[in-house]
Amino acid sequence: MTMKPPIGRDTRLCMSLSARPGNFGSRFHNRLYELRGLDYVYKSFSTRDLPGAVGGIRALAIRGCAISMPFKEAVIPLLDGLAGSAAAIDSVNTIVNDDGVLTGYNTDYAAVVALIADIDPATRFVLRGSGGMAKAVAAALRDSGFRDGTIVARNAGAGQALAALYGFGWAAAVTEGAPLLINVTPIGMTGGNEDELPFSADAIAACDIAFDVVQYPPETRFLQAARAAGKRVITGTEVATLQALEQFILYTGVRPTAAEVAQAAEFARG
Amino acid sequence: MTMKPPIGRDTRLCMSLSARPGNFGSRFHNRLYELRGLDYVYKSFSTRDLPGAVGGIRALAIRGCAISMPFKEAVIPLLDGLAGSAAAIDSVNTIVNDDGVLTGYNTDYAAVVALIADIDPATRFVLRGSGGMAKAVAAALRDSGFRDGTIVARNAGAGQALAALYGFGWAAAVTEGAPLLINVTPIGMTGGNEDELPFSADAIAACDIAFDVVQYPPETRFLQAARAAGKRVITGTEVATLQALEQFILYTGVRPTAAEVAQAAEFARG
Repeated sequence: MTMKPPIGRDTRLCMSLSARPGNFGSRFHNRLYELRGLDYVYKSFSTRDLPGAVGGIRALAIRGCAISMPFKEAVIPLLDGLAGSAAAIDSVNTIVNDDGVLTGYNTDYAAVVALIADIDPATRFVLRGSGGMAKAVAAALRDSGFRDGTIVARNAGAGQALAALYGFGWAAAVTEGAPLLINVTPIGMTGGNEDELPFSADAIAACDIAFDVVQYPPETRFLQAARAAGKRVITGTEVATLQALEQFILYTGVRPTAAEVAQAAEFARG
Repeated sequence: MTMKPPIGRDTRLCMSLSARPGNFGSRFHNRLYELRGLDYVYKSFSTRDLPGAVGGIRALAIRGCAISMPFKEAVIPLLDGLAGSAAAIDSVNTIVNDDGVLTGYNTDYAAVVALIADIDPATRFVLRGSGGMAKAVAAALRDSGFRDGTIVARNAGAGQALAALYGFGWAAAVTEGAPLLINVTPIGMTGGNEDELPFSADAIAACDIAFDVVQYPPETRFLQAARAAGKRVITGTEVATLQALEQFILYTGVRPTAAEVAQAAEFARG
């Protein structure tokens, strides 16, 4: 293990921009910089001036920036180009700055593609949600060969638009189960929705795979119920960790070991 | 001693902007943050786009920014106002961001005022130099009551202008000594000029106080010669440390102890 040098003139800054910054990114990236002895530092920011913030990324040669709600689409015209992952869903969650050329990526999309890679695409799914992350998951499913699925969203406009975009069905409410159940809503999330289930107990008992993008708590009631019934689960922590790892690799060119990633993710969840 | 928390969403960023960043500021401020358990991080930057960089300070709510060559005057129209220290010399080396209101300060000026405070202003001086820092020192002398002095600068235009601005004499070369000798040129600096003296050995032997703003090496040949002859010396390290301390207090509202400042300065000189 190389010692990380003190912050100085050669230290590269990476950052995040969101309306309500969390601590996961800062802790995950900074811990990996320490573990790998990399001369980087990571800091989260909020802003009310997205063009000014992106101008600052250019003017200060900030190496990379995570983009969260509500900036994922608004940032696109401020960039120089989109990588395939962002172009696939017209949504950017990551900027990489190569000597003043800003390229948008979407590591959420890339992480979901990786996490569903070994699921048979003939598997039928039901996906709850219609927001930006639901779009990333739906696109990842479509681009991975999934054709038989239903988008469930109370918001008919958003739900139908998302379903039509990727050729899936739409329903206003969950009326049937599927082998692959995916929650991309705040249902089950810390802060008031902890006790709710996105799918019925019967649907969970009948599924094969339960996929929840909720990050806090790490084990939602949905995942607890699925795990207790012996189902395979894909967790919000896995999505958050894998997408942050993809960012880390884009920013630094360094691929940490699985043990290092696990240690950083554990610290970041702290 | 309070533990500094890991960098996260509440961490405040302070920074510097200069054409050729050094490491002193990053190391000084970050060490003091550690010693005081303050949730801040400091990072130096270079830029080719000063308005974009200052826009970034606003958009990202960066708490403070040190301004070095060549931005000290160009930054003024980008700010919302000047504190007295900056207005005194129309030169900004520090920006403080109070909820989006950017105020320019000059802590070099303030540091020199403090370092010469106990010198009798009737003391005659010779000051070598005519750049931005020479202006800060000359203004500090004038505002501290010094009236009898000569600005020595080979550049006649800059030297005469500076002398006229503050009511001092001008000379193209050092022809006489004085009780207070001040070097504000790169003479004696690491990088090729180490062996030069800004004043003759005779002048140094005849002076009372030797003041050198050169920061590297910490002991220039000028200061070595003066110290060996039992003269009082004021060093570039003292200027750099005191001006950085003033910045630290402006940014954090915290006044560290002398021992903490000494420890941070020692680390920063590294």
